[in-house]
Amino acid sequence: MDLYLKPGERIDDLYRKGYHILQHPEKYCFSVDAVLLADFARVKHGGKVLDMGTGGGIIPILMEARTGERNFTGLEIQPDLCDMAERSVRMNQLEDKISIVEGDMKEASDLFGGASFDVVTCNPPYTKKGEGKVSRSDGIAIARHEIYCTLEDVIREAAIVVKPGGSFYMIHRPRRLPEIMTLMQENHLEPRRMRLVYSYLDKGACMVLLEGVRGGGAELIVEKPLILYEEPGVYTEEVQEIYFR
Amino acid sequence: MDLYLKPGERIDDLYRKGYHILQHPEKYCFSVDAVLLADFARVKHGGKVLDMGTGGGIIPILMEARTGERNFTGLEIQPDLCDMAERSVRMNQLEDKISIVEGDMKEASDLFGGASFDVVTCNPPYTKKGEGKVSRSDGIAIARHEIYCTLEDVIREAAIVVKPGGSFYMIHRPRRLPEIMTLMQENHLEPRRMRLVYSYLDKGACMVLLEGVRGGGAELIVEKPLILYEEPGVYTEEVQEIYFR
Repeated sequence: MDLYLKPGERIDDLYRKGYHILQHPEKYCFSVDAVLLADFARVKHGGKVLDMGTGGGIIPILMEARTGERNFTGLEIQPDLCDMAERSVRMNQLEDKISIVEGDMKEASDLFGGASFDVVTCNPPYTKKGEGKVSRSDGIAIARHEIYCTLEDVIREAAIVVKPGGSFYMIHRPRRLPEIMTLMQENHLEPRRMRLVYSYLDKGACMVLLEGVRGGGAELIVEKPLILYEEPGVYTEEVQEIYFR
Repeated sequence: MDLYLKPGERIDDLYRKGYHILQHPEKYCFSVDAVLLADFARVKHGGKVLDMGTGGGIIPILMEARTGERNFTGLEIQPDLCDMAERSVRMNQLEDKISIVEGDMKEASDLFGGASFDVVTCNPPYTKKGEGKVSRSDGIAIARHEIYCTLEDVIREAAIVVKPGGSFYMIHRPRRLPEIMTLMQENHLEPRRMRLVYSYLDKGACMVLLEGVRGGGAELIVEKPLILYEEPGVYTEEVQEIYFR
């Protein structure tokens, strides 16, 4: 596997089907958010899936491992990360199932056309430009801050590329929820499932998982709370299952 | 206390400051929803509070008990319930602190004028007209179904009668959350606090508590989950405290 490795990178075990992933601590590493989103998203047999802003390709790789589906596309604007994601795909011999495309998610509808995917996933940057501390690493800054795309861009493009009746899955910060709900509805992605993620049972929500269905007719279900930790450093049983099943 | 009682009514203990409340099982009885909302709502010292659709007056009575504030108004469209609420207020000797006003919450802004309350609370009907099973009791049907007012009416009127910077508190069903979020923002009630209520830790949310602030500038915080039951018939410690403290 070292054949695939470039300077500064490391290889992490994904604990699934023997898969591994390349990561570069100074450019981008996936976090629990991506793992939760890959678990939350559902895809029917034969479904075509687009992951917008795929980074190192973690979401399509994890979803392939869980679902066995064979038609994933990861869209990523940063050439370095595209290259790393492509090597991870080859390293796991998933070239037939996962394509990595270099491009801007603001232009996803131009790149792929309307109604071209059954499922769209996105773990977007959470923080508005000009807010919060910005990483000195360009890669990390782009992943965390709305430098290349805003929440509005993400939702607008997802709503176009997903087929009518298809689903858009996103993880985000609860503080952006009012904006997310309004933007989804404006773009005819009707919120259908929501799950709040709490670090501990007695703490406020740190993340929110959402499914929107293009065309509506859906009624929102708020699923049971997802609690990350039993105590510091110890994941709950559910999160351990998500990571290691 | 029997002096206050009319046929078909009963007197229930509120387990606070010796307070009791009149209830009429065929017209309207409060549920855990009202208790949770009265606990979730905050009022600063000297604040004026309006409860829209007060039913038997449960929310102002519980809020007076908890906060010690002295300026509550309960607005209720049903003459029978107004009469019952007024008798409950007198029975607890709260006439100086709680006024019951007979009137339509659709016209709250005409009745009270704009920017006239620091806090507005509402436990509205949850179900749209024409959906779900409608009670044969008019009183219960009006409390549960949007017969006299819609969600839009509630939020519009609350947004007018609350002062800039003041808070609107509501409990509702999670399935209506997308609509609630959009209506609140359209009416410049920025969602500031939200708490999901789950019957059990491993079940989907059954209710949502929300605070919106007139004029915005607020960022949403999703508070820790509120779990109702440990096991069937046994409230969690937190809910017991809310009921019996």
